[in-house]
Amino acid sequence: MKDFSREEIDYVLDTAEKLEPVARGEIRSRLLDGKIISLLFFEPSTRTRLSFEVAARRLGGQVLNLGLVEASSVMKGENLADTIRVISAYSDLIVLRHPLDGSARMASEFTSVPLINGGDGSINHPTQTFLDLYTIRRESHLDGLKIAMAGDLKYGRTVHSLCHALSLYGAEMTFVSPPELRMPSEIVRVLRKQNILVKETESLEEIIGDIDVLYMTRVQKERFPHPVEYEKVSNKLKVTGDLLKAAAPGLKILHPLPRVNEISPEVDETPHACYLEQAFYGVPIRMALLALTTGVIE
Amino acid sequence: MKDFSREEIDYVLDTAEKLEPVARGEIRSRLLDGKIISLLFFEPSTRTRLSFEVAARRLGGQVLNLGLVEASSVMKGENLADTIRVISAYSDLIVLRHPLDGSARMASEFTSVPLINGGDGSINHPTQTFLDLYTIRRESHLDGLKIAMAGDLKYGRTVHSLCHALSLYGAEMTFVSPPELRMPSEIVRVLRKQNILVKETESLEEIIGDIDVLYMTRVQKERFPHPVEYEKVSNKLKVTGDLLKAAAPGLKILHPLPRVNEISPEVDETPHACYLEQAFYGVPIRMALLALTTGVIE
Amino acid sequence: MKDFSREEIDYVLDTAEKLEPVARGEIRSRLLDGKIISLLFFEPSTRTRLSFEVAARRLGGQVLNLGLVEASSVMKGENLADTIRVISAYSDLIVLRHPLDGSARMASEFTSVPLINGGDGSINHPTQTFLDLYTIRRESHLDGLKIAMAGDLKYGRTVHSLCHALSLYGAEMTFVSPPELRMPSEIVRVLRKQNILVKETESLEEIIGDIDVLYMTRVQKERFPHPVEYEKVSNKLKVTGDLLKAAAPGLKILHPLPRVNEISPEVDETPHACYLEQAFYGVPIRMALLALTTGVIE
Repeated sequence: MKDFSREEIDYVLDTAEKLEPVARGEIRSRLLDGKIISLLFFEPSTRTRLSFEVAARRLGGQVLNLGLVEASSVMKGENLADTIRVISAYSDLIVLRHPLDGSARMASEFTSVPLINGGDGSINHPTQTFLDLYTIRRESHLDGLKIAMAGDLKYGRTVHSLCHALSLYGAEMTFVSPPELRMPSEIVRVLRKQNILVKETESLEEIIGDIDVLYMTRVQKERFPHPVEYEKVSNKLKVTGDLLKAAAPGLKILHPLPRVNEISPEVDETPHACYLEQAFYGVPIRMALLALTTGVIE
Repeated sequence: MKDFSREEIDYVLDTAEKLEPVARGEIRSRLLDGKIISLLFFEPSTRTRLSFEVAARRLGGQVLNLGLVEASSVMKGENLADTIRVISAYSDLIVLRHPLDGSARMASEFTSVPLINGGDGSINHPTQTFLDLYTIRRESHLDGLKIAMAGDLKYGRTVHSLCHALSLYGAEMTFVSPPELRMPSEIVRVLRKQNILVKETESLEEIIGDIDVLYMTRVQKERFPHPVEYEKVSNKLKVTGDLLKAAAPGLKILHPLPRVNEISPEVDETPHACYLEQAFYGVPIRMALLALTTGVIE
Repeated sequence: MKDFSREEIDYVLDTAEKLEPVARGEIRSRLLDGKIISLLFFEPSTRTRLSFEVAARRLGGQVLNLGLVEASSVMKGENLADTIRVISAYSDLIVLRHPLDGSARMASEFTSVPLINGGDGSINHPTQTFLDLYTIRRESHLDGLKIAMAGDLKYGRTVHSLCHALSLYGAEMTFVSPPELRMPSEIVRVLRKQNILVKETESLEEIIGDIDVLYMTRVQKERFPHPVEYEKVSNKLKVTGDLLKAAAPGLKILHPLPRVNEISPEVDETPHACYLEQAFYGVPIRMALLALTTGVIE
């Protein structure tokens, strides 16, 4: 994500907005007619895979779905480089998802066709960040945004990447988490250097009245030695109808999904709920990335 | 299935008949051009899945195949409601198959696009019933039909549903099963209330000369405490060339497949064998349901 | 493969060459528009499956991917015959891959649509042989070819089948393998009867200067009682930059992939390396076979 300038990001978001009626099935497009888009996923990711698949098909492209790569040659000892080389001989573009940090960059050295990083390792998931930015722009605003991020801020790659991207737009950020799962101090330091106003707290109540966007993330049970501690934390970081009584009327709640119990069902019916729109926005954003990367839109 | 009137069923069957040349690949259709049909199967079902997939493609639609849902987010603890919500944001129609009774009806409350029940739990599998009715109409006749159903009539949801649907056309029904696997008395009572003539027997020989259609089902080994008892029962409920010597010339044999040994291979060559046509008829029937449900045919 | 005459093989190769620009995505084809190609794979085979899928799609066809058949009805005890019958009711062509010798021929008796053998058992994998021949013709020459085959010549079905096919063109063949993995004497005998000049050796160095094509294959660890013996053999049968110093300038190296360590990475950059082109040529060859088998090209 750090390779993109604000202008480049805006251009992707603008393109996504133009393609939104195609994503909704209102306009038929054949921009990717005759193109083969290969989805090479080395770890499961329903939402990312499906939204790429829908994006490619809504643009008239063909999807070569390699399924979850496991029963395949890769198991016979073949290395990633050879797999990428062969798939690129069959495709016009590859979307790669891989559990190892840096694998997308490495893979891109072995392919003769464009490659999109569909998430690799614990650091990068750029198309998720693009879709988060797009959701914020469509449902709230990017400039001078007051955003709170809540949940597991220590391990959550989506929030790390989003922080960096939002810093290009000058946001005010509040990080809400239990002490064990605070935003890494290195990230906070970098943000402050960029003159981003950063606050940290453990309580949603404190800040709910003063933000435009609340970005929730899942807290994983496995991070805690005892279930009791997990329960304590997860109850504190829960968005309920009660909590939202103090919210600004325009507050929008995002969540990369799947959620467990961070957001109560009663919130779904409120105008604050934005996470399903967010899931949908994965389609126009990935359309934009597919179209720009294959060069059918310049 | 109980939601459909005879007129509505006839309309689906009429539509399927019109679409049959498309199902055979003789006519090219683009009725579903630009539509995304998502297949969300929570349990395996080759025939149902494939016939929906072929139906959608023969009509020019795109299929979003979620595979057997397992390695996906659902496993991370997400509930069915959220999964349905997200998939409906990506699709123009969802076909759901789920092991739990009532899950299709529940799911339909969370989707913003039409949803077809591809079989849920032990009770409902409406598209199978439609295809059975269509097969009977195409290969025999629906009005005044004399039908025998044989095999596991206790647990077989296809025969339960078929009984109900056929009762709208005034059939005579004979149920052939071992005592352990008889048609539930509740169903027999309801049929008799509707003035359906119902007979029960344990022997195919007795009735083979006096029926238009024989609907065979698989008897599962697991229903019996001892393999010996299973053998006894399954040998008694076997359609062989010998048995068919006493059949009416126009007798048609149906089976939802897969079969194990209920029908001997020599029967395949006789004009009575209808189970492969039946498998094929899954395509035009599902075409009709897709076309009517998406509204491309009214 | 033995069913094909030299003229028939040449015709397939000619057709593939005409379709190559379509395979490269340079020309859009709709030859298979409206056709459904079913891929029925009973064992994993990434490369074969993907190249068929790309071939069908680049020609405008629809692919019905049955995935790795396992969670399907086949497991409920259904026999291959019924599975084939049902799939052929849904398809315009079936590609079958199966672990048992002769299953493709058997299956072809139960299908009403054309069937292509995508590899069955330890003997036949005809579309691989076609693509090997095509690669040799495109990158070297078929008539009067001097070819060496190296690696596991005892169990490697690709080399057995290739030997036979090349014998129609009058090649000179050298077999390079450890004593444990020599070409079966029966095959050598048949070749000599057809006046093919056959040499056998254990060393690549000896012959590298005097061949047009080197066909490498993988030696499987499991063939050896001790890892040490495997190491010894696999080190001897390794293509390195050093080895290639003695090679003829026009030497082309093929490998059906996946490779383990038979070919060092530094070889990839040399003009000798041909195995990735070979992987790509799977697409035009399978296009030709699909087009000829469905009759859209005669």
